[in-house]
Amino acid sequence: MTGKLAGKRVLVTQADDYMGPQTVKTFREAGAEVIADRSDLTEPDAAGRIVAQSGPLDILIANLAAPNHHGVAVADIDDDIWASMFDIMVHPLHRLVRAVTPQMIERAQGKIVVYGSATPLRGIARLAAYTAARGAQAGYVRAVGVELARNNIQVNLIAQNWVESDVYYPESLQDNPKFRSRLKQEVPLGRLARADEDTALALFLAGEDSDFFVGQIIPFAGGWVS
Amino acid sequence: MTGKLAGKRVLVTQADDYMGPQTVKTFREAGAEVIADRSDLTEPDAAGRIVAQSGPLDILIANLAAPNHHGVAVADIDDDIWASMFDIMVHPLHRLVRAVTPQMIERAQGKIVVYGSATPLRGIARLAAYTAARGAQAGYVRAVGVELARNNIQVNLIAQNWVESDVYYPESLQDNPKFRSRLKQEVPLGRLARADEDTALALFLAGEDSDFFVGQIIPFAGGWVS
Amino acid sequence: MTGKLAGKRVLVTQADDYMGPQTVKTFREAGAEVIADRSDLTEPDAAGRIVAQSGPLDILIANLAAPNHHGVAVADIDDDIWASMFDIMVHPLHRLVRAVTPQMIERAQGKIVVYGSATPLRGIARLAAYTAARGAQAGYVRAVGVELARNNIQVNLIAQNWVESDVYYPESLQDNPKFRSRLKQEVPLGRLARADEDTALALFLAGEDSDFFVGQIIPFAGGWVS
Amino acid sequence: MTGKLAGKRVLVTQADDYMGPQTVKTFREAGAEVIADRSDLTEPDAAGRIVAQSGPLDILIANLAAPNHHGVAVADIDDDIWASMFDIMVHPLHRLVRAVTPQMIERAQGKIVVYGSATPLRGIARLAAYTAARGAQAGYVRAVGVELARNNIQVNLIAQNWVESDVYYPESLQDNPKFRSRLKQEVPLGRLARADEDTALALFLAGEDSDFFVGQIIPFAGGWVS
Repeated sequence: MTGKLAGKRVLVTQADDYMGPQTVKTFREAGAEVIADRSDLTEPDAAGRIVAQSGPLDILIANLAAPNHHGVAVADIDDDIWASMFDIMVHPLHRLVRAVTPQMIERAQGKIVVYGSATPLRGIARLAAYTAARGAQAGYVRAVGVELARNNIQVNLIAQNWVESDVYYPESLQDNPKFRSRLKQEVPLGRLARADEDTALALFLAGEDSDFFVGQIIPFAGGWVS
Repeated sequence: MTGKLAGKRVLVTQADDYMGPQTVKTFREAGAEVIADRSDLTEPDAAGRIVAQSGPLDILIANLAAPNHHGVAVADIDDDIWASMFDIMVHPLHRLVRAVTPQMIERAQGKIVVYGSATPLRGIARLAAYTAARGAQAGYVRAVGVELARNNIQVNLIAQNWVESDVYYPESLQDNPKFRSRLKQEVPLGRLARADEDTALALFLAGEDSDFFVGQIIPFAGGWVS
Repeated sequence: MTGKLAGKRVLVTQADDYMGPQTVKTFREAGAEVIADRSDLTEPDAAGRIVAQSGPLDILIANLAAPNHHGVAVADIDDDIWASMFDIMVHPLHRLVRAVTPQMIERAQGKIVVYGSATPLRGIARLAAYTAARGAQAGYVRAVGVELARNNIQVNLIAQNWVESDVYYPESLQDNPKFRSRLKQEVPLGRLARADEDTALALFLAGEDSDFFVGQIIPFAGGWVS
Repeated sequence: MTGKLAGKRVLVTQADDYMGPQTVKTFREAGAEVIADRSDLTEPDAAGRIVAQSGPLDILIANLAAPNHHGVAVADIDDDIWASMFDIMVHPLHRLVRAVTPQMIERAQGKIVVYGSATPLRGIARLAAYTAARGAQAGYVRAVGVELARNNIQVNLIAQNWVESDVYYPESLQDNPKFRSRLKQEVPLGRLARADEDTALALFLAGEDSDFFVGQIIPFAGGWVS
């Protein structure tokens, strides 16, 4: 195998959802051996189990995606919707990191990249539960990034918004003239990111050139935040 | 009654913990009618119940404090410690806001101040669960702050660190020369904040002069972050 | 004299421009002795001279306002417009701080508040020279804030936008329906700040309650940034 | 020529200073045609002239380095030191961008990468003039980044600190045990960045994969800020 990540073993979670498919493709093209996991990570033992089954891992790509509940007013977010956001995006993140760090610490090398969100950096109305969960991811990455830097493990988060995805920007929405006008207005670049632009950033953060990135929350939003 | 907050009704949660006692004192001195609640908010119905029992509320001070688990490595944070952080600091925050906003929306006026943390802005090793939960609070405040601004309700968060408190900085620690030297090194101001400096900021954010603050995460850390 | 700032001596620069008139009013109402200076600070010796003439100063309010050149494309900003932004807003800031700090260091007490801008936090097209100069102010406050904290002098900056002012939001603009609709869209609070809300924040930062604020860039923008 | 930047023409300023030599090397290895300029850019006409002489440019790398005046207290920064920081790092940045954007706008494509500093994000005592100038660069990049995004030109800034360089971290300093201990304490990664790690980020920002980065100030500091 050749390529920037030749010889590297990578675990991608929720491989069929969100940034999963493009991540698997991009990382395989870069020469990595990719374990494309499709487990339901809300089950408490799942994270530990899939890490144990994966064998040695150089890179963890935490791709944790929840259904879109945008539009629910804060007074209407019930305990079930609220808990589901944390069950899907937050608790599995810790369980994955907890499971994978011992082997990375032993080898004094590792990369963890989290597909997170820019929404905790700039608030959006009627998106409170999602933003809280994404904020938890960001706080976690800051703390764990600093903690594991001394072990030469880099943990960083892509704080994305306005990235092509069936869940958040289905084709019907993208064709909507009102949406297109809002896009021009809110996103200085004036378009959505292609999925492969997003995974190119993940690839950069998973490679050797990014060792000096420690616990960073990196905006990826076409200028919507910077 | 006279004072800046004369005639205002304020709910302070966990009134015996963390910033609670000084908050009750400061707000009473400012003329407010303070409901100093001491309920255990991890009980799912507690938040809704105490808001319902409190009657009309102009101001909510979300004071949510967890035990200090600083020092636990990320690989050693078990599911119970992890969950407790969210049970204490995150889920009750949403339940309180959900319960109190309808009456504030109806009056087109309200203030919500959250005592949060600066740790999601600058990572600290071996503090991952706490920082994740505080990050969730920050994300939540950004989203809810923007959402409720249109209702003339201001929601803001004090992102504090290095504030006097028995839980985080017991007297024995403050007397420790090593701690005092670290304080000089890490905090440009070179000292802890007094609790009344912190509650003075809360008072500012709860008063009329702060209407233009919307969903803000305000560092309060003596220059440790800015 | 009574009031929060009774006995305090305050220098307000460009007292007739920008936030000057309301600042003078607010600080006098708070009991301070206000020196309302109207000198042209682009003259290199002016800053040092007015500080020397002012006698003992507890508080410096750096109110530095430039004409509005919004709308000039980056390729059209000539050297004269460019230099004028720094001549008006940046160089006098340093000269004022340089002149006033020795007496504050000697007394181990002082407050410096800068009326700055939120534009370096969120970019606006066709505003490059202004934003660069405001960014210089912000960088300066960060450095000087940390440096002078050890002398118990607090230096902070109000990163404002969407605040009522004849220069940036003349009445004709405020009456323009297009502007009003843009205001609703871009500013979550949906209105401009009144000048007295802005000076209330300056008053907070100039008072004893804000000693723990060190070198901070405090967004004041109705949720436009947070 | 092969390589990621094959066929691209790149101007690198101050090619013998600061990040210049490694930038020239990295970009040539990536297949770019590099114009390694060594002009003194404090001369007002220099920037326009070298851009005119360079012919078509796909990429501008604004490498603007000043002597190290760290250690001068704010009260001792005279007008000459102060002005030199802006003459070297700020005014030439605008003149370069002003000169190069018309051709990039015409082609609806271009990349501008600025080697800036993390110091405006976290203040350092006795570094006020430098930090102000670096803050001006950051503000400028925010504004120009948003403005030129609509022309498909991406302008971003590397907010670096703790990167190997003869000027800021001479060998004698790096060998100093006190410095090495401070490095461990202040930089979570515990070491300086190699110059080639820094230029790898510049390469990423100059390439096609970074189109969605708009006016960003990207911390590159080993966790010192994030």
